[in-house]
Amino acid sequence: MGAQQQEIDQVDLGGVEMVTVLQALSDPVRLEIVRQLACGDAMPCGQVRLDVTKSTASHHFKTLRLAGVIAQQDEGTRRNTWLRRDELDARFPGLLDAVLHAG
Amino acid sequence: MGAQQQEIDQVDLGGVEMVTVLQALSDPVRLEIVRQLACGDAMPCGQVRLDVTKSTASHHFKTLRLAGVIAQQDEGTRRNTWLRRDELDARFPGLLDAVLHAG
Repeated sequence: MGAQQQEIDQVDLGGVEMVTVLQALSDPVRLEIVRQLACGDAMPCGQVRLDVTKSTASHHFKTLRLAGVIAQQDEGTRRNTWLRRDELDARFPGLLDAVLHAG
Repeated sequence: MGAQQQEIDQVDLGGVEMVTVLQALSDPVRLEIVRQLACGDAMPCGQVRLDVTKSTASHHFKTLRLAGVIAQQDEGTRRNTWLRRDELDARFPGLLDAVLHAG
């Protein structure tokens, strides 16, 4: 990890319960964040397009991070965010697929 | 349907959003109800064993019913409850399996 990069406290998904992940996902804004992140690689928070204020968005990103759904890393002035897809698939098989592929 | 049976207002799952179902499932008591119902056929509410008061349990059953997760039918003095498994699987493929099979 370079001197400019700093990973933000990442929870151990092994200790996260299903109900915590369901609570994190059960909000329209957070579901939208997850859907947008599922489309690509790590992206700066600001590139996730949401119809909420910056502070509301920050709250939702934090909720997702504390539930182990996303990870974040500061790189200079940017905060990159990505979905912990492989780890989530290993801990809760099929959950993210079901949520992302819902009609 | 016999004269003694009365189905309680059942929501149209086609109009239920993923986020509503996730909200319904994102509670430890409701998750426990779903897990117990997944084990068998329709059972009287009282046979679902929960560590909460009767009124709290009723609230949780109602939340699950309004989200389309369970259906209920009164039969004399009994209220039978069952998981709308096939309909949920059709509307949100893989979701219930993922939730039920989580370690």
